[in-house]
Amino acid sequence: MRPIIPDYLAEVLRDVERDTSGERAGYIPELATADPERLGAAFAMTGGEVYGAGDVDTEFTIQSISKPFVYALALSDHGFDPVLARVGVEPSGEAFNEISLESDTGRPRNPMINAGAITVHSLAGADGLSPTARVERVLEGLSAFAGRPLRVDEAVCASEMEHAHRNLAIAHMLRSHNILTEDPRAVVDGYIRQCSVLVTVRDLAMMAATLANRGRSPLSGRQVVPELVVRHVLSVMFSCGMYDAAGDWATQVGIPAKSGVAGGLIGALPGQIGIATFSPRLDVHGNSVRGVSLFERFSSDMGLHLMEIPAAARAVVRSNHAVGSGTNMLRVLQLQGGVGFAGAERVVQEAMTIAPAEVRVALDLTRVNSIDDVARRMLLEIARRLTLDGHTVYLVDPESVMPDPDPGDGGRVTIVDHVDDAAHPHATAKKGGRSG
Amino acid sequence: MRPIIPDYLAEVLRDVERDTSGERAGYIPELATADPERLGAAFAMTGGEVYGAGDVDTEFTIQSISKPFVYALALSDHGFDPVLARVGVEPSGEAFNEISLESDTGRPRNPMINAGAITVHSLAGADGLSPTARVERVLEGLSAFAGRPLRVDEAVCASEMEHAHRNLAIAHMLRSHNILTEDPRAVVDGYIRQCSVLVTVRDLAMMAATLANRGRSPLSGRQVVPELVVRHVLSVMFSCGMYDAAGDWATQVGIPAKSGVAGGLIGALPGQIGIATFSPRLDVHGNSVRGVSLFERFSSDMGLHLMEIPAAARAVVRSNHAVGSGTNMLRVLQLQGGVGFAGAERVVQEAMTIAPAEVRVALDLTRVNSIDDVARRMLLEIARRLTLDGHTVYLVDPESVMPDPDPGDGGRVTIVDHVDDAAHPHATAKKGGRSG
Amino acid sequence: MRPIIPDYLAEVLRDVERDTSGERAGYIPELATADPERLGAAFAMTGGEVYGAGDVDTEFTIQSISKPFVYALALSDHGFDPVLARVGVEPSGEAFNEISLESDTGRPRNPMINAGAITVHSLAGADGLSPTARVERVLEGLSAFAGRPLRVDEAVCASEMEHAHRNLAIAHMLRSHNILTEDPRAVVDGYIRQCSVLVTVRDLAMMAATLANRGRSPLSGRQVVPELVVRHVLSVMFSCGMYDAAGDWATQVGIPAKSGVAGGLIGALPGQIGIATFSPRLDVHGNSVRGVSLFERFSSDMGLHLMEIPAAARAVVRSNHAVGSGTNMLRVLQLQGGVGFAGAERVVQEAMTIAPAEVRVALDLTRVNSIDDVARRMLLEIARRLTLDGHTVYLVDPESVMPDPDPGDGGRVTIVDHVDDAAHPHATAKKGGRSG
Amino acid sequence: MRPIIPDYLAEVLRDVERDTSGERAGYIPELATADPERLGAAFAMTGGEVYGAGDVDTEFTIQSISKPFVYALALSDHGFDPVLARVGVEPSGEAFNEISLESDTGRPRNPMINAGAITVHSLAGADGLSPTARVERVLEGLSAFAGRPLRVDEAVCASEMEHAHRNLAIAHMLRSHNILTEDPRAVVDGYIRQCSVLVTVRDLAMMAATLANRGRSPLSGRQVVPELVVRHVLSVMFSCGMYDAAGDWATQVGIPAKSGVAGGLIGALPGQIGIATFSPRLDVHGNSVRGVSLFERFSSDMGLHLMEIPAAARAVVRSNHAVGSGTNMLRVLQLQGGVGFAGAERVVQEAMTIAPAEVRVALDLTRVNSIDDVARRMLLEIARRLTLDGHTVYLVDPESVMPDPDPGDGGRVTIVDHVDDAAHPHATAKKGGRSG
Repeated sequence: MRPIIPDYLAEVLRDVERDTSGERAGYIPELATADPERLGAAFAMTGGEVYGAGDVDTEFTIQSISKPFVYALALSDHGFDPVLARVGVEPSGEAFNEISLESDTGRPRNPMINAGAITVHSLAGADGLSPTARVERVLEGLSAFAGRPLRVDEAVCASEMEHAHRNLAIAHMLRSHNILTEDPRAVVDGYIRQCSVLVTVRDLAMMAATLANRGRSPLSGRQVVPELVVRHVLSVMFSCGMYDAAGDWATQVGIPAKSGVAGGLIGALPGQIGIATFSPRLDVHGNSVRGVSLFERFSSDMGLHLMEIPAAARAVVRSNHAVGSGTNMLRVLQLQGGVGFAGAERVVQEAMTIAPAEVRVALDLTRVNSIDDVARRMLLEIARRLTLDGHTVYLVDPESVMPDPDPGDGGRVTIVDHVDDAAHPHATAKKGGRSG
Repeated sequence: MRPIIPDYLAEVLRDVERDTSGERAGYIPELATADPERLGAAFAMTGGEVYGAGDVDTEFTIQSISKPFVYALALSDHGFDPVLARVGVEPSGEAFNEISLESDTGRPRNPMINAGAITVHSLAGADGLSPTARVERVLEGLSAFAGRPLRVDEAVCASEMEHAHRNLAIAHMLRSHNILTEDPRAVVDGYIRQCSVLVTVRDLAMMAATLANRGRSPLSGRQVVPELVVRHVLSVMFSCGMYDAAGDWATQVGIPAKSGVAGGLIGALPGQIGIATFSPRLDVHGNSVRGVSLFERFSSDMGLHLMEIPAAARAVVRSNHAVGSGTNMLRVLQLQGGVGFAGAERVVQEAMTIAPAEVRVALDLTRVNSIDDVARRMLLEIARRLTLDGHTVYLVDPESVMPDPDPGDGGRVTIVDHVDDAAHPHATAKKGGRSG
Repeated sequence: MRPIIPDYLAEVLRDVERDTSGERAGYIPELATADPERLGAAFAMTGGEVYGAGDVDTEFTIQSISKPFVYALALSDHGFDPVLARVGVEPSGEAFNEISLESDTGRPRNPMINAGAITVHSLAGADGLSPTARVERVLEGLSAFAGRPLRVDEAVCASEMEHAHRNLAIAHMLRSHNILTEDPRAVVDGYIRQCSVLVTVRDLAMMAATLANRGRSPLSGRQVVPELVVRHVLSVMFSCGMYDAAGDWATQVGIPAKSGVAGGLIGALPGQIGIATFSPRLDVHGNSVRGVSLFERFSSDMGLHLMEIPAAARAVVRSNHAVGSGTNMLRVLQLQGGVGFAGAERVVQEAMTIAPAEVRVALDLTRVNSIDDVARRMLLEIARRLTLDGHTVYLVDPESVMPDPDPGDGGRVTIVDHVDDAAHPHATAKKGGRSG
Repeated sequence: MRPIIPDYLAEVLRDVERDTSGERAGYIPELATADPERLGAAFAMTGGEVYGAGDVDTEFTIQSISKPFVYALALSDHGFDPVLARVGVEPSGEAFNEISLESDTGRPRNPMINAGAITVHSLAGADGLSPTARVERVLEGLSAFAGRPLRVDEAVCASEMEHAHRNLAIAHMLRSHNILTEDPRAVVDGYIRQCSVLVTVRDLAMMAATLANRGRSPLSGRQVVPELVVRHVLSVMFSCGMYDAAGDWATQVGIPAKSGVAGGLIGALPGQIGIATFSPRLDVHGNSVRGVSLFERFSSDMGLHLMEIPAAARAVVRSNHAVGSGTNMLRVLQLQGGVGFAGAERVVQEAMTIAPAEVRVALDLTRVNSIDDVARRMLLEIARRLTLDGHTVYLVDPESVMPDPDPGDGGRVTIVDHVDDAAHPHATAKKGGRSG
């Protein structure tokens, strides 16, 4: 069978190819001479597969797409408070190169504008790192996201440094507010090296997939940054990643994203997919024209929107029935699918209908696909309360979908592999009857 | 068994109760004299249950919490384009009563600031409605969200109208830009009536749950506004709902939300839950102090964050095995859990490993809990391509979890209730073998 | 002899006539249909003569030119502090219809922008005036400046009121900050009546001449507003009168000025002249295109620039010589021209060279044209100190150019009509020898 | 006799001495440790005298007071257009260190804010000067204003360069807009050297007096910058010299002025006086607290306000009488005092009353103190028109107060020393009867 996704990607690329509107970034000579016809797109799955079409292996500079990743590194290296003390998380509604400092504190409004990103660069790695060591930390970190060693394009880097007056202005302004505490010129130099890292569409898709995969690289399996950092970074990308077009993007595309002036664009949909595109011509907001079109197609074709509500699932409580009769009677609540807070709440409702006389109760998880943490705690609390009410509680969990099944403080559950094991309790549970 | 969620809510309320910081809204006399100790919280499930603790049945005015709902009504009544032509969707990074009009067009930056909300009010209901009829449309619409008839607090309404100079200023400014085309005074009057609608925490939780439930009231089952409208509104709430504290909220709480100066606060987590709290003391951003604390607790305790990635589920492909042998051999791909784009992609990968000689292939959906639209299309495309490659394809779907199973253009699937029906195809499929 | 100035004015009008650039004010229908070819200019001398050319008797609405005059009325009616507490005096660098309120206090930046002028209107006349009585006070005051009774153009007034949304917005905003304390709609109505007062170029020139003449009407001789108010108003006109083109105007034209959207433009050069022009087409700043050209010509042709330093005058000390000899010897300091601070300082220097033995000293003011207050005090102090040093001091002042010649505290001067009266002191001074 | 002005200055200093409010500039260590009690004031007359009291010979750094002088140098060295193309003249209403660039062009709003002054520094001297040569040009120019060689305080200069991040930020921003075309760091270095020039109150008063004296040093007699440049610079000082307190200053003090963070403050009243004060404690606007009080006193005590209208002078036309009778009759218009445009206009009026039969007419300038250029042209035009009407015109001008008395095109005047020479025309005029 021919693969489906590459066919789809190729078709969508063909559709946007005819759009030659927009202009290459003009302020850096090396970017102004890029081949404007380059076009590529890739999907990286959290399972590690990458599907691409077009120029997926062409190298170009990462530019601003480095911002969320280095922000994640800085948060990992310093923790939230020191970073938030220096850079806010509020959308500025302004262009990427606006200074946008808070008037009282001089704190940049967010890490996606240059002022914030320059500050964030200075917070990557341990305090007191030399500029060179800091760039190494950044390069190592970006490589970890990409799952392969990346390198700096020295020509673009030199070219940008010559036209870095606005960034130098920003850095000196930050220094004057003590937001930056190091030599502004060295920080801008390091920041420009960060922006000059060479990546491919394939790399970017994998970097985005690492965010989508809770910070763990689908390629290397390495936990690049902690989960809470990823959640924070994705939130900021959603509000601030597309500059003054952030609101349009949030409503129409709905994928946490970041664009770069070299023409790259990434999106990360938590738990699902990392997407990257490349096309050098930019719109007035500095976002790739075709890249934006591609993401609109992806979002629309595949329902990849953060506010898209998954199709109504089957009811979590598949059945509530009795097995046997008399004192041996077993009340069975058979669950199915993924159980989260809302599903667990349904189980609570069913559990409340159980009569005191129905002494023996089984929660049958055989058909349960996943249980999230809050649901786990709620199911265990159901078990605990039933125990306290005098019930004997069984958990039917042949594939151990419920981790650490300890209901705590007065609760007790017997773990069995099959509902029959609960229905006929004289039979010994396999695995010696795990019980909490 | 005692219910779990009310216990939890009561405990969290006790924790925040001691915090008496903040001030009641001072600019409307009726609000300034509200009982500052009122405190309530409620969860409304998409299934219709409401859990509450504290003052869940106290009536107070909805104020700005009406904004996202009336925005949804306006989008429903006019479609996206006419509304977006008048009101943007970009965060303003400013306080709720800043004028924040785009300098060139006079368009308010977003519908969550007063300028946007006043404009949106004028877009509720059909064009040319009388002011009275428009207020009726708004009242009817808000009632539909709440699932019960709501009414206006005439005293607060009159009190606000006397102190409406800032809103009148905004409305006249909008009129001067032709963003408003009606009498500014009549529009502000209507807008203030909208803000003076009386609600309880229970109502607000249900209104939020209606958003979380794709626009369908869990109480009445009525589709109040279309799904696409809800997706759009939730996106805007996420970026702009908490004014100049939107970024902090997005990162820390991560729930699309809206606050009102009377002390109400709602959050809607798509597909999961509607939450509402009430406590009149406000912080400097105009958000309820205890309300913000409550949401921080809810988000943190229950992982209710938009960027929270659900716990790793079991693999979608439960097994890939052969049944029987020789020409009768059946290749069975047994799926489980919820299948979305990423899951369907896994199935594609498995499908590509099927040898041409393995003529008969079954996709077993027996343990599948849900299939979203893109996954449905991908599974059907797998079936179509397998058919074209010469395979005979069965869909094992005893509970019809796959809607409309037509692979289209050259594809063919035979629907059966049990994998045995595919393994022994001479046996007649139940229901006459649905086939696409 | 044919008069000179009308010839000059006619010539300059011919030069600017061919410039048909600019547009009539579009936002008020009555102004948009004005005859765009109208062109007039007039000079009003502080002596009362008015020279004009072109359409000097065509009536048009005064519009914003009313602002400095009503500001002067408000300052007269309330004193400085209450007015300055409500309206600042800082240039805003913004267009006339920007709101430009100070962010903390809501105080308009200055009285020349609409926000300030609307506030100022509410401060004309006594506190608590009815709106009608206030408009009467304004109309009476403007008429006093013009030296003839003015009236409102009811058609323009009605037309403007229909398009007053921006001004209503501003007024409601001011009301919300308690800068306005009355009904915003009534104040705007009054303000629009103020702007709709009909004037001619001749009127405006006379109004400007009243400012140039320390607040006294050259026509009626009436002191319309106090001198200190005029000084203040002229300063504000210089910094803020031409909106966002104020700096260009201050440097190039250098005359305190004010323009109106109906095409009028006035300038007042303190102590010298009032100028007015009329031509309806406006530039992007809202100033009359030809009016600006005319003023540039006037300033350049006639050196009418506030920073223009008058031609070097003859030395104030015309001679320092001795008359007679021995004990009868009289030291004579003969002064000439206008004596101000700098001239008096020269006299101090000469006086310091007088030897103690030269007992008799005369300050001869016969050829002195004027003495300002500080010079008067300095000359009297010279006389006092000379008296204390043992000198006998004469003031030769046949035309009483020195008012109230009392040197005070130990000083003594004998006033004589001719230096001979001092040289031969046995001769009785005419008028009985005024002495201080 | 004891001098008057130093007594006055000493008295005023005593009055302000007790005010110890305000703070020394904190951001430059060298300034933060200045003796806060230093206090001095000086008047420099356009005649060259300097009166001082207090610390008039203490050296301190000139800081921002250099701005108007270097602006004058740049305008002299390049002409108006190239400088105005780079720096505007509009008040910004903002603090001195706000960036305040025009959003479209990047042009600083005016030369009194740092962004403008840094740009202006780069425009001092010829194009293409080395940074060192530019600083030399600036130092030479400031010295020419002061009338003595000035030098840089190397310690303050080094100290400021270490804290120059905000200025470096501004310079890089200007460079990014191509407003600056040289190395931003070198320009800021030069600008800081400019600000670190050491001056005394005596120097500053003389520098201000050079502005008040049309650009000619009262000390050296050298024309440091052209008159038109001075007029322009004084206008800008009036609108923009006191930052965001410019409007208060313009209305209350009314003297074109500039302050520096080291505590200096200058004012220049055109044609009259240069004033300087020194006291290191600054108010929130960055202006010397006591310096502002001193200027308020000076302005109030001595009527030194730009809008102060000089006391009403005697009428320019002293008399209009006939001498002799019959054909020999001579119509004499006797003028007096200073004659400007307004005075000349009075003469026109009198001249228009002359009957055709009164063939011989004399304009008697014996008591005229000064005639400005426009008045000169008008008087000559009167003479010309009278000639054309058949009159014979005499100019009685014994001290040649009327320069170049040529009425042009058909006009003719006979210059005589005494009215008798005109009354008896057979008598030969002295000096051979100058005639135009």
